[in-house]
Amino acid sequence: MSKVCIGIDLGGTFIKFALLDENMSVTGALQLPTPAEAGPDGVIESMISGATELLDHEGISAGDVTGVGIGSPGPLDLAAGVVIGMPNIPGFVNIPLRDRVGDGLGIRTVLENDANVAALGEYLCGSGKDTDVMVMLTLGTGIGGGIVIAGDLIRGAHGIGAELGHMIVEPDGEQCPCGLRGCLERYASASAVARYARKLIEQEGRKSILTEVLGRKGGIDAADVNEARHAGDDLAAKVWDRAISYLAVGCVNITRLLDPDLIVLGGGMAKAGDDLTEPLRRHFSRLHWTIDTQKTALTLASLGNDAGVIGAAGAAWKQFG
Amino acid sequence: MSKVCIGIDLGGTFIKFALLDENMSVTGALQLPTPAEAGPDGVIESMISGATELLDHEGISAGDVTGVGIGSPGPLDLAAGVVIGMPNIPGFVNIPLRDRVGDGLGIRTVLENDANVAALGEYLCGSGKDTDVMVMLTLGTGIGGGIVIAGDLIRGAHGIGAELGHMIVEPDGEQCPCGLRGCLERYASASAVARYARKLIEQEGRKSILTEVLGRKGGIDAADVNEARHAGDDLAAKVWDRAISYLAVGCVNITRLLDPDLIVLGGGMAKAGDDLTEPLRRHFSRLHWTIDTQKTALTLASLGNDAGVIGAAGAAWKQFG
Repeated sequence: MSKVCIGIDLGGTFIKFALLDENMSVTGALQLPTPAEAGPDGVIESMISGATELLDHEGISAGDVTGVGIGSPGPLDLAAGVVIGMPNIPGFVNIPLRDRVGDGLGIRTVLENDANVAALGEYLCGSGKDTDVMVMLTLGTGIGGGIVIAGDLIRGAHGIGAELGHMIVEPDGEQCPCGLRGCLERYASASAVARYARKLIEQEGRKSILTEVLGRKGGIDAADVNEARHAGDDLAAKVWDRAISYLAVGCVNITRLLDPDLIVLGGGMAKAGDDLTEPLRRHFSRLHWTIDTQKTALTLASLGNDAGVIGAAGAAWKQFG
Repeated sequence: MSKVCIGIDLGGTFIKFALLDENMSVTGALQLPTPAEAGPDGVIESMISGATELLDHEGISAGDVTGVGIGSPGPLDLAAGVVIGMPNIPGFVNIPLRDRVGDGLGIRTVLENDANVAALGEYLCGSGKDTDVMVMLTLGTGIGGGIVIAGDLIRGAHGIGAELGHMIVEPDGEQCPCGLRGCLERYASASAVARYARKLIEQEGRKSILTEVLGRKGGIDAADVNEARHAGDDLAAKVWDRAISYLAVGCVNITRLLDPDLIVLGGGMAKAGDDLTEPLRRHFSRLHWTIDTQKTALTLASLGNDAGVIGAAGAAWKQFG
């Protein structure tokens, strides 16, 4: 029996489980709804029972598991394995998640933040395979980040590095809930795209076919903006281009600091595919310095929503393998 | 006889040499003028003869030297050990500096860029001792950068990382010779401070006591601006504060990506001492996010102009020790 690691990706809607062998191949997977209403105890119980069910189904005993990796929203205290807080699950405050799940399963366990495990997943099994320095941006409600150098996640001295969505790209710009102004995620996240379109329509009375969508659906998202853009809507085109332009500034700054082989783009905005990457590559090239050739590539994530659970198992391999 | 490494810091004005033992203590040092007019051959000859002279003086044979580290301006091809170009020494184009010095001395040699060795020097023997993640900013004509994580320099996938002066801090801002607009070094380097003061006086006719200095000396530098500020000059105060404010944005972005223990400030601007660090810490705190306590410290470099030569020897210890 070859050894495996278990990855558990704790999200607000689903808990995902996967088994990863030492060749970084997924040999089993399971998904359960997150019983958020049951609070931390219920969620932890589901994490333990889901992992046990997956092992039983695959006929693997706990003794053949090298380790467990958990990817979790945060903030986290990585060294202590503690969830400091979790916006989507009420009551999840100062919970020693690593030890409670690890003790429940009787397997040594590592806790890592969700954006980091997604980056590690893409690095090990996705678009970042064969790179040495890889950065991932997850463009969703906010912008998450992960940095991998020579196989290792860069967490910083206090576990709060790779917060790529909170780079300042516009000094004195839009207010961010983090307390600062002008953070990248206020301009280039999926929700920033929708918010800016809505602002132009509702507060500035600008004309757009999105007005009709807004009236019909009561809201719009980044995909609506991209669709309107394809239908020739000028406002949508402007909104989309502005977001991508700021995203390119973020990618330039990442490149200046870390000189990655590759920046991988995931999250809701990445569903736009070439509609994201083509204009982004164009802006990134426009913003490239002229003193050296452009070396960093930009591409879409390839594991979709599975990057996190694969990377969580990968984090266990890194730690215990 | 305990082993040593030789550090050689190649600058436009001086070549510095130092011997560093395995306890990271400097056991000998030498400085020679850089014979720039003699071209690459003359400069390389001086590097070899200076290192030989230092070894002879200290009674150390080449066999007791673990390795040589060279810190050099660039751009460099680190993997090949080649200087691609050097602004201050004409003709220094595509010169295999590592192998020519190493072969001349008969000692294995590593080539590293000057900003990186300065950072490594501060990390090993200066302000960065006892840190895990340290970033150094050298505020001079431009802004150089160096990143050390767990003892290793972060060079990037193509050796062009840690170019901290070329982070974009003002989209569509001032044109930089690198080809982009709004780079940090256009706002926060020593020369940017002098340039902006001069622009306000000469192009906008603003009143300042610096006008007299400019007339008398034919030019002003960052120290003149700081002095005028102390004399109560409003324009100088505004110019200084603007530079520090942009520098704080750069420090915030470095902190978001890398979460360092410490950002070390060196170069000409750092001679201002508390006049640099006090307002910088104030702006850095003002720009700190509210979702977590501030953990990254800012401080002055402590090795002055010796950081490079010490770090060059340290790079040899890293590579060959």
